[in-house]
Amino acid sequence: MNAEYLLHGETAKALYDSVRRLPIIDYHCHLSPQEICEDKPFDNIGQMWLAGDHYKWRLMRAAGVDERYITGDADWHEKFLHYAAALEFAAGNPLYHWSHMELSQFFGIDEPLTAATAEDIYRRANDCIRESGLSPRKLMRDARVETVCTTDDVTDDLSWHRRIGADATFPVRVLPSFRTDNLLLMRRADYPAYILRLSAAAGVQVKDLATLKAAVENRLLFFVQHGCRFTDVGIPFFPTAVADEEKANATFCALLQGKTVTDDEYLALLGHLYVFLGRLYRENGLVMQWHLAVTRNANTALFTRCGADCGVDCVGDMLCGGDLIAMLDALQQNDALPQTVLYSLNDANAAQIASIAGAFPGVRCGAAWWFCDHKRGIRREMEIIAENGTLGAFLGMLTDSRSFLSYARHDYFRRILCTMLGEWADAGEYPFDNAKKLARKIAYDNIRQLMEEHK
Amino acid sequence: MNAEYLLHGETAKALYDSVRRLPIIDYHCHLSPQEICEDKPFDNIGQMWLAGDHYKWRLMRAAGVDERYITGDADWHEKFLHYAAALEFAAGNPLYHWSHMELSQFFGIDEPLTAATAEDIYRRANDCIRESGLSPRKLMRDARVETVCTTDDVTDDLSWHRRIGADATFPVRVLPSFRTDNLLLMRRADYPAYILRLSAAAGVQVKDLATLKAAVENRLLFFVQHGCRFTDVGIPFFPTAVADEEKANATFCALLQGKTVTDDEYLALLGHLYVFLGRLYRENGLVMQWHLAVTRNANTALFTRCGADCGVDCVGDMLCGGDLIAMLDALQQNDALPQTVLYSLNDANAAQIASIAGAFPGVRCGAAWWFCDHKRGIRREMEIIAENGTLGAFLGMLTDSRSFLSYARHDYFRRILCTMLGEWADAGEYPFDNAKKLARKIAYDNIRQLMEEHK
Amino acid sequence: MNAEYLLHGETAKALYDSVRRLPIIDYHCHLSPQEICEDKPFDNIGQMWLAGDHYKWRLMRAAGVDERYITGDADWHEKFLHYAAALEFAAGNPLYHWSHMELSQFFGIDEPLTAATAEDIYRRANDCIRESGLSPRKLMRDARVETVCTTDDVTDDLSWHRRIGADATFPVRVLPSFRTDNLLLMRRADYPAYILRLSAAAGVQVKDLATLKAAVENRLLFFVQHGCRFTDVGIPFFPTAVADEEKANATFCALLQGKTVTDDEYLALLGHLYVFLGRLYRENGLVMQWHLAVTRNANTALFTRCGADCGVDCVGDMLCGGDLIAMLDALQQNDALPQTVLYSLNDANAAQIASIAGAFPGVRCGAAWWFCDHKRGIRREMEIIAENGTLGAFLGMLTDSRSFLSYARHDYFRRILCTMLGEWADAGEYPFDNAKKLARKIAYDNIRQLMEEHK
Repeated sequence: MNAEYLLHGETAKALYDSVRRLPIIDYHCHLSPQEICEDKPFDNIGQMWLAGDHYKWRLMRAAGVDERYITGDADWHEKFLHYAAALEFAAGNPLYHWSHMELSQFFGIDEPLTAATAEDIYRRANDCIRESGLSPRKLMRDARVETVCTTDDVTDDLSWHRRIGADATFPVRVLPSFRTDNLLLMRRADYPAYILRLSAAAGVQVKDLATLKAAVENRLLFFVQHGCRFTDVGIPFFPTAVADEEKANATFCALLQGKTVTDDEYLALLGHLYVFLGRLYRENGLVMQWHLAVTRNANTALFTRCGADCGVDCVGDMLCGGDLIAMLDALQQNDALPQTVLYSLNDANAAQIASIAGAFPGVRCGAAWWFCDHKRGIRREMEIIAENGTLGAFLGMLTDSRSFLSYARHDYFRRILCTMLGEWADAGEYPFDNAKKLARKIAYDNIRQLMEEHK
Repeated sequence: MNAEYLLHGETAKALYDSVRRLPIIDYHCHLSPQEICEDKPFDNIGQMWLAGDHYKWRLMRAAGVDERYITGDADWHEKFLHYAAALEFAAGNPLYHWSHMELSQFFGIDEPLTAATAEDIYRRANDCIRESGLSPRKLMRDARVETVCTTDDVTDDLSWHRRIGADATFPVRVLPSFRTDNLLLMRRADYPAYILRLSAAAGVQVKDLATLKAAVENRLLFFVQHGCRFTDVGIPFFPTAVADEEKANATFCALLQGKTVTDDEYLALLGHLYVFLGRLYRENGLVMQWHLAVTRNANTALFTRCGADCGVDCVGDMLCGGDLIAMLDALQQNDALPQTVLYSLNDANAAQIASIAGAFPGVRCGAAWWFCDHKRGIRREMEIIAENGTLGAFLGMLTDSRSFLSYARHDYFRRILCTMLGEWADAGEYPFDNAKKLARKIAYDNIRQLMEEHK
Repeated sequence: MNAEYLLHGETAKALYDSVRRLPIIDYHCHLSPQEICEDKPFDNIGQMWLAGDHYKWRLMRAAGVDERYITGDADWHEKFLHYAAALEFAAGNPLYHWSHMELSQFFGIDEPLTAATAEDIYRRANDCIRESGLSPRKLMRDARVETVCTTDDVTDDLSWHRRIGADATFPVRVLPSFRTDNLLLMRRADYPAYILRLSAAAGVQVKDLATLKAAVENRLLFFVQHGCRFTDVGIPFFPTAVADEEKANATFCALLQGKTVTDDEYLALLGHLYVFLGRLYRENGLVMQWHLAVTRNANTALFTRCGADCGVDCVGDMLCGGDLIAMLDALQQNDALPQTVLYSLNDANAAQIASIAGAFPGVRCGAAWWFCDHKRGIRREMEIIAENGTLGAFLGMLTDSRSFLSYARHDYFRRILCTMLGEWADAGEYPFDNAKKLARKIAYDNIRQLMEEHK
């Protein structure tokens, strides 16, 4: 990946030069703090790439690769060869870009990965891993990572975060985020067991809505003590009403007792909890993230065989704009609207969601998410933010990733950003000096400033 | 804004040169005919820009500006400085383009507006206002405006239009359009009061559906006598059936008496009135405009504080294509389908709506509207019209604006149009000579011809 | 259409040179096998273009042409002149591209068609038809067509396919596809009559679900014996559940007896038949095509006057993603998911559908369909396939056409494909050597390989 990759024109290159070495604040990811703490060196690139990356599994399935070489019992070497063959003709897939950027940035390999070059590249990449002692912390340091925000269950004891924080030799801040999916998926069969874990973690016996709130508040304050700045939720339901305290309590108690509740009751309880959580977030200066329009585990056969996160999630149906407006408005009217970032997996109503964000001060759209997170999608999301709000307030790139190699995607993003701003500068639509400042704001300054608030 | 702004390539520039000085027919706007008639000189650019422009208010909110400097009690100077600071990093926002085009075209100021240049530009712009006596009529004359169509309630007495028309020294035609929103929002608490106003305006006591129709027809003919060519409706409901006369009358009478009607009854009455109005428009050779998929006043707190049109409207959920088809088909089968222009605020079904328009002769899509009215959206809407219908019948740009400075946006549109046609000519996809004729048709000839029909 | 048309840059041209003369496999079209068999020379270009092409009729209507010159009693010469005048200002419409490519490729005419040139071009085109004896087979041969897959009703006797296949002098394979629309539109008034035809064709008296299945299986095997590789369905309903055998039989029998069934019963029977058909296709190695999101015959007046396929079909409302997932999952869980190609007419959920396809191995998205099949739509669909799956498995272009001139659209597609890959190669995003192989795979190799499977 040379200095020109993805950069169209001299202006884009000049902008890129001014941001390429800025530190990385990856404010939403799924890295394992345990792996960061333990810092075990990696074994081979096959495992690094293919042990858990469901993006790659999907691509291999689309290319017709047998499941044995995807999630089956083939070895890493075989799996790598099949991935290489699939990648060879995956032009335009973000994995084509990311894989080659990772090979270049972390392994010093700049040739195209194909069926023909796979053996050689596999050997050289593994040599590099051994010789340079590639490990989680080394990758983070090499990528100039300043801060990462992991995604952690409400009940998490954050012990790994504490241990990392206590290690003065490691310069990267690893902060928890408050993820409420398990808390809010209240119809799952194991929900009562989850509530027991929550009770234990909080030291509060949850037996009704009031004790639930006490337990959640306890946990949130614990997270805040550990530097938490962000919260997150990504469940496939969205509240459509806000139950009052009494009705919400009745529904919650019914759920705890394993009783059936109607959809309307369920969604109104959810709305009640959104308001409760929103107020808590607002009071504690946290940024609330909503991940919208996702359908998980669409393929029952593969889900049954491989479990969740096996590459069979999909873009969900569009969220009803009226529901989103109603919920944001309810939050605001209850003094419960914190700073908020919206991410939608369904790009069809990206502009609508941006227009809704624009009606609520403090609500903004986030970077292109998951299936939208590719060259065209990143550009499109930035254009939509620009047109409906302001790039001046955009928080920029996050990886949402489980892989320590994904920092290459910050570079990817910066190149796409600089090409867009460069085109506008070249066309006389935006002054170069402003573009330079704006590129820096989006690449680093805005998120840095947000991280420093309320410290 | 020099001769190259937004124009990519020599062909685009040549096309632009051939249309840039054509007169402007702004066939849908929200200018105040009273302000045109009174023609008071403006006071300062802060007031001109920020007294009522909810586009700018939204941008300031998205940039984190305190409401005091948006709709609060700060003075125009302070508000201007805050707007400038917000605009500085609003790259890609249409306001960035429009504001600078207005500064250039009307104030002769070609520097970027930033926090640093705001004081100086504020002073120079205000000097220009004073020195050149900037007023509504001066701005319209300077922009070579030939005709504007304002948007007027059914009950309007059109007295300002008459006074303007009687002034032979003012060359701009100011024509009313027949806006039926208040007529068709029949569930509003003040609807009976509106009907009283309608009765008075028409000289017909409205007490049932028959008298309503008589009153509306009376008003429409009055508008037609004043040169009305366009009608408009932009309510957040769309009819889903057509009630027969008897049922429609029963529902209407119930509404007049403040009784509750079901949603189905309401929407079927609406369908009945759409057919009635469509026939009336068709008989009088008027062009019917439908503005679709808008949600107004989404933020209750801001709406309560600032009232309607305060910048908290949003893109609405997509209109159901089946409903649109059903209504157009019902109109046609009742000999009630006039020439029709469709505008959708939700860009996700723009292509679907264009395909539906294509199934009904005389129905076409209009220019990109409101949240879609930016560089990318204008281009996209034209591409959709081109792909699904024909640019040869496109009516071109309108501002939909309340500001006398918005004529700069016709220049904006013409640049985008010429860049698109220029690219096609350069790529060998469309001959230059045709492109030149087509640019002129879209910039002026088509709408001019429509205005002259039925005179 | 010279060597540069639609090709941006030298790399694009080099790629195009490597694929432009590859044979054509048009794996989904609506050509008449009778016309191929009889091979009557054409009469004039007016008839060739305007006798049945509802794309052109739509364009003429959008341009304001009187229906007399579209589907009325005007002669071909008059109709051609009106089409030319409409086309002149239809910049960006795919018909503008296609018509000129057809004039160039088949008639040797490279001037723009306008009102002014129409007379001359009409004469020259007709001279060309006479002099070169233009006929269906000649056009297919000249376009280097290797195979076409027609679209045939389940009850078709395939006699024309047999006669063509028996003619050793004609090198083009003409294969049937198994189209189940008439079989699955079970609420039409003439459905019992259709079932009688099916019974006769299959030699099985259909009186319940079991005999229906026997008859359908009989017909499918007959199609397979005639080289069928593809099946197709394009009805405006999509199953939302899968009835068990007993319930499906009850609903089917009720329909056969002209009784009313509920929508839920109907859609569950449809789901049952989708599973039955899917299993049959899978067992016989056929590729299943689903055409989604279409609304037919939207304009009752024109439909009544001109019948189906008169240019008043529209993009349908988006298919619910949850329904699509449920059906694909039901097929897979019943061992009834064959290789599948999805086409959606509504581009708003193209990315969602691609993400759903990616969750089911063997399911892929097809080329841009109908209203999406234009320069921008073709590019967009390829980008979506690239981003969400892999272009390496893309089956490439098909015409879906009733016209023997439409092979020019394969050239159109190849130019757009090569421009996209060329841009990526130029930007350093994809190696030129890979791009060359990939262009060939998409233009020919992939579909060729699929055609040869299971032979």
